[in-house]
Amino acid sequence: MFRVGVIGGGQLARMMQPAAIALGIELKVFAEATGSSAKLSTTQVGDYTDPDQLAKFAAEVDVITFDHEHVPVALLEQLEMQGKSVQPPSKALIHAQNKLVMRKRLAELGLPQPIWREIRAEEDLIQFLEENGGSVIVKTPIGGYDGKGVRVVESSSDVADWFAALESFGGSLLAEQKVPFVRELAQLSATSPSGDFQAWPVVQTVQAAGVCSEVLAPAPEPVAAESAREIARAVALGLGVTGVLAVELFETEDGHLLVNELAMRPHNSGHFSIEASRTSQFEQHLRAVLDLPLGDTAMTSPVAVMINLLGVDDKNDFVSHYPEVMAKFPEAKFHSYQKGARRGRKMGHITLLGSDVAQLISQGKAARELLYRGGA
Amino acid sequence: MFRVGVIGGGQLARMMQPAAIALGIELKVFAEATGSSAKLSTTQVGDYTDPDQLAKFAAEVDVITFDHEHVPVALLEQLEMQGKSVQPPSKALIHAQNKLVMRKRLAELGLPQPIWREIRAEEDLIQFLEENGGSVIVKTPIGGYDGKGVRVVESSSDVADWFAALESFGGSLLAEQKVPFVRELAQLSATSPSGDFQAWPVVQTVQAAGVCSEVLAPAPEPVAAESAREIARAVALGLGVTGVLAVELFETEDGHLLVNELAMRPHNSGHFSIEASRTSQFEQHLRAVLDLPLGDTAMTSPVAVMINLLGVDDKNDFVSHYPEVMAKFPEAKFHSYQKGARRGRKMGHITLLGSDVAQLISQGKAARELLYRGGA
Repeated sequence: MFRVGVIGGGQLARMMQPAAIALGIELKVFAEATGSSAKLSTTQVGDYTDPDQLAKFAAEVDVITFDHEHVPVALLEQLEMQGKSVQPPSKALIHAQNKLVMRKRLAELGLPQPIWREIRAEEDLIQFLEENGGSVIVKTPIGGYDGKGVRVVESSSDVADWFAALESFGGSLLAEQKVPFVRELAQLSATSPSGDFQAWPVVQTVQAAGVCSEVLAPAPEPVAAESAREIARAVALGLGVTGVLAVELFETEDGHLLVNELAMRPHNSGHFSIEASRTSQFEQHLRAVLDLPLGDTAMTSPVAVMINLLGVDDKNDFVSHYPEVMAKFPEAKFHSYQKGARRGRKMGHITLLGSDVAQLISQGKAARELLYRGGA
Repeated sequence: MFRVGVIGGGQLARMMQPAAIALGIELKVFAEATGSSAKLSTTQVGDYTDPDQLAKFAAEVDVITFDHEHVPVALLEQLEMQGKSVQPPSKALIHAQNKLVMRKRLAELGLPQPIWREIRAEEDLIQFLEENGGSVIVKTPIGGYDGKGVRVVESSSDVADWFAALESFGGSLLAEQKVPFVRELAQLSATSPSGDFQAWPVVQTVQAAGVCSEVLAPAPEPVAAESAREIARAVALGLGVTGVLAVELFETEDGHLLVNELAMRPHNSGHFSIEASRTSQFEQHLRAVLDLPLGDTAMTSPVAVMINLLGVDDKNDFVSHYPEVMAKFPEAKFHSYQKGARRGRKMGHITLLGSDVAQLISQGKAARELLYRGGA
């Protein structure tokens, strides 16, 4: 019996459950609070930054993996020194926790990325602004997600509060050029500790207000698919990533790709794979972290479109609109994460499979609208 | 929030879990014992023939449905009289519990079935044997499954023990002609209380020692697909079945279909639908019993082959052979029910998708062999 321990009780841990049930893998979740999205598999509730609680959880499983990237690396190093398998390992995870560490390592590896600079003081930012057209992106190296910790900046005063709290971000900020991209892509892959590597087709992600709204799988042509896959392989190998890795990419006007962000866990851009790939990202992640051989990533359909369901208010439970929406969209696959409603929160998603991407997007958006508002 | 209560903690309840997780449906299982295959969703353990325990469980859910067909109909009628939704309802379920009741009702509906007779005494059987070539099938009307309660009989002395215990079977046995069939088929469908009906493609089932060994979906041509679907629709309508219904069929040499057995729940012949249909039988069952609109049953692949994994001894845990089998069969989907090993017990299954049925069967059997024996 294989036992996988997941730190974090969010929707990513939740969606590992079906894969674990199918394969007969025992999944145990260490959640921050009771009633989490992954409550069905939750075996421990508490504080994952407490070494004793973490050690207790680790003792119950064969491998530790993650729903999120917030576990302090020092704690994971302790587990590793005690011989516990942590996947991805701490030495890889640090690149997902700290964007400056990531940028430096990608530069060493010669991988394509936006022009960037470590900002230790206001003068650094003023100079970077001058060199890059007077408008740049500034990020906190740690703690950001879904558009948080990221700002478009035209003057150093736009991040005066971050400069004031500089020590809490490790003493620096990260500045990046505003890439004139034509679209955003994501390359999902998985790597096992033994070096087995499998990638899914590169997808296009559509963002709204910094949060993923739709995913088109595969990304409509023309797309530098081979290049995206090679970047993912180089990142996985170069950073020592195991399990699922999502590489978010900017596509420039001339078709070149630049690495935007990394996620070392199943990722929103890969939810299409639950129905649209022979092996879902959640099954693949379990196989990878257990160092089992990886599964086939062929598509089960020419095209898939994934539509995120974000909370519209603090009470909307779109599940109550299933009757009308399922009647109108019998081919749509609905996913509800059973999280408390909150405006803008990722509450679920819809996946549609077919061959005409424009039609699937239009159907998916109509289904989302009906789920939000009901048929009244 | 929709709440579905399942009586029975076997692999069918287990495989409802992934569908419930995706849709955000709360699944509660009333299991016979702790540590069952569906233990993740088990909220009550005990005796489902105890009215008080059953009532307690029913109070926690919106609808009661089943992993098996053994709940006494009288107890379900009580729940129904108290206004609880039971799907399939007791008036339908009686036909799955008692094969004589089923044969009589199918005869009233004019549906095609083997020649049969109710056997109240030895003389009845002697006469039925004379009329039907001296070799017939005798079944206990209640309590049989997977080949149990079914015998090939050439003399009434072959079932002397059953005649001695006749009262325990309700006072009669069921005799059926030995149908000279060329193959066995199964027609899976789902019906909602509102009358929504959806069928999957008719499949071929291959039995070994009375237990399903392989399923080919769809059944290789030529096959009377439309006829199979119409029989299923007539059974569902005529018997008032809701949820998933499996109609097991004999195909005769001239391509005619005869109803062999009925199951009013997800069924082994429908496991292919987890990966090979847009809507799996487990998702469809949940939608049907909640009276939600049913999902699309289109295949995701031209052909699927499902290979059962039966226990080979009392200790074999084939999951330990995943490393070698997954390496050799990256496209195979593995399912382990996490049941205690026992020779002949249904322990899991493998599904393979593709376009060449003979190749898939051969791959599936090779994968099964490697799972049983390992690569040593």
